[in-house]
Amino acid sequence: MSAPRVALLGVGLIGGSIGLAARARLGAHVVGWNRSPAALEIALRRGAIDEAVDSLDDLGPADVAIASVSVDALQGAVCDLCERLPDAVVSDVGSTKQALVEAVDREQFVGGHPLAGAESVGVAHAREDLFDGATWYLTPRERTPGVLYERLARFVAGLGAVPTAIDAAEHDRLMAAVSHLPHVVANLLVEQAAQALGGATLPATGPSFRDATRVAGSNPPLWGQIYRANAAALGAQIDELLLRLGEVRDLLREDGDLSGWQAQAALHRAALLKVGMQGDSSREIRVSVPNKPGTVAQIALQLGRAGINIADMTLAPEPDNRTGVIALWVCDGDAARAIELVSGLGYPAA
Amino acid sequence: MSAPRVALLGVGLIGGSIGLAARARLGAHVVGWNRSPAALEIALRRGAIDEAVDSLDDLGPADVAIASVSVDALQGAVCDLCERLPDAVVSDVGSTKQALVEAVDREQFVGGHPLAGAESVGVAHAREDLFDGATWYLTPRERTPGVLYERLARFVAGLGAVPTAIDAAEHDRLMAAVSHLPHVVANLLVEQAAQALGGATLPATGPSFRDATRVAGSNPPLWGQIYRANAAALGAQIDELLLRLGEVRDLLREDGDLSGWQAQAALHRAALLKVGMQGDSSREIRVSVPNKPGTVAQIALQLGRAGINIADMTLAPEPDNRTGVIALWVCDGDAARAIELVSGLGYPAA
Repeated sequence: MSAPRVALLGVGLIGGSIGLAARARLGAHVVGWNRSPAALEIALRRGAIDEAVDSLDDLGPADVAIASVSVDALQGAVCDLCERLPDAVVSDVGSTKQALVEAVDREQFVGGHPLAGAESVGVAHAREDLFDGATWYLTPRERTPGVLYERLARFVAGLGAVPTAIDAAEHDRLMAAVSHLPHVVANLLVEQAAQALGGATLPATGPSFRDATRVAGSNPPLWGQIYRANAAALGAQIDELLLRLGEVRDLLREDGDLSGWQAQAALHRAALLKVGMQGDSSREIRVSVPNKPGTVAQIALQLGRAGINIADMTLAPEPDNRTGVIALWVCDGDAARAIELVSGLGYPAA
Repeated sequence: MSAPRVALLGVGLIGGSIGLAARARLGAHVVGWNRSPAALEIALRRGAIDEAVDSLDDLGPADVAIASVSVDALQGAVCDLCERLPDAVVSDVGSTKQALVEAVDREQFVGGHPLAGAESVGVAHAREDLFDGATWYLTPRERTPGVLYERLARFVAGLGAVPTAIDAAEHDRLMAAVSHLPHVVANLLVEQAAQALGGATLPATGPSFRDATRVAGSNPPLWGQIYRANAAALGAQIDELLLRLGEVRDLLREDGDLSGWQAQAALHRAALLKVGMQGDSSREIRVSVPNKPGTVAQIALQLGRAGINIADMTLAPEPDNRTGVIALWVCDGDAARAIELVSGLGYPAA
């Protein structure tokens, strides 16, 4: 995609950073609209957009359109973009995906969620390198046209992020576990410590309590919306934590030895935070596929589930226009497994 | 206390750091014993002790004796010191206090707990500045001789720490809330994320999950002992967290707005982490007291409960030997409240 035309609905921290990176790294022409004209003015002055428009009707034409507004306003924003920009792949940057993806009945829409920049707000904090190395989840559906998914994944990779396909429900479950639940728990630890201290300040101590509760109370309007939007998955994670916590309490009552449990947690954490094969060289895999909807999404989701990153992707239709070849670049170390997984879907790969 | 004689039973990270700071900052003569002769040898070579002894019988005489051994071995170690060093104030550095203080029936023993250095072990990591600015809890009892409490508090302050008197049960409740519960929760968050990720590594994301779980699985043998030693207070904190967590889950189910709750957590955290009045100048308060046991402990505990640090303290008996004066140094900003609190105990203060 050379010099893509990009439409941004919302130019805050995330939208503004997309604009900065798209212009600087992809040579994109970026047009922006924002509810607040003042923010739009700043975005223009900071070089996050080429052009500011007063009306959504003037955003297009575009190849890629991204809605970067608050969670509550996302559905309307995405629909606005789909209606006005029929040729664009439309995406968003919201922290929860299932409800939105189910509510928006458009083939051209692919949900998105970059794991970056949740802690501050406003175009004033926007940066070209905000997404460098960050996972950027994309939630293609079976009927997502491969060419649109490819365009979006390539755009996101061009901003510096690592596009990672994931099922929308799976995304929400994962975010509930690794982000929303830790935020809830941080709040509760703070409440409980405040209660135990009875108005005194925290004793001078190491950084462990500060670290454990760093996200407590962060951005209340944003987090209020995130909790609500992901209420089902977060509720399930809370239920699970209630069970686990009860088990620990019982172990403790029985004067059980928790040192084995503590050691187990050390292993879990080391496995979770294992450094990825960043320095690994990548390898091309070619997959022969029928030219039908859903194939690209199916392959991307299968690899995403296995934790295999697709560093790059191209689609090449065969002359008969009924079959084609997808070229995927993955880490050397992942190549054998990727071939096995893709072959398992019934597509010859090598 | 000029050039105190210090006896150390255990010269690991904490004992070794006490030795380094006592020698460098107080000109102390430090004698050490350790179960492992190799560690004792290192302590001697690193200058943490002046003298290494093979037998506990050779530790004395001493003004201050500190047991710095594992939680399970503390009771025996403290009793050994009390028997052999009748003139010393004996203390320890364990993370829980109530069980130990109840088990050791000795006037000369005052429980202690410096909030420093829990994350690494061994005399090789000992440092002279380990305690700089750290809260060092002391748990005097009613019958603790004032002169012994004063000696210990002054020694601890001389190492760079802030001695803070606290009731042993209150100490354990507080540590359960601000330290032991966060450790339990970090382990559970890690377990649950591992489950949700099903063997994949954590997606590349911001530092929030890493921060929230930094202490997960730390030092399993040590933490196994700490959990067990503080089982009652930790169990109560877990029960409280179960209640709070259930409330959040119910709010979420009712589609309640959690943004107000989130904002409340922000206020709590800011209040908890409020920077103390470190740069404040201090002021002397003089208190007239009867010369009877328990007075110093009573005053120190009263001020400790109110979050008022005693920066320094001296005891001066009147010539009649039936009354005396305690001089306390506290922050300017705390002086009025300290006078009020001490007067409230029935002791004239100004």
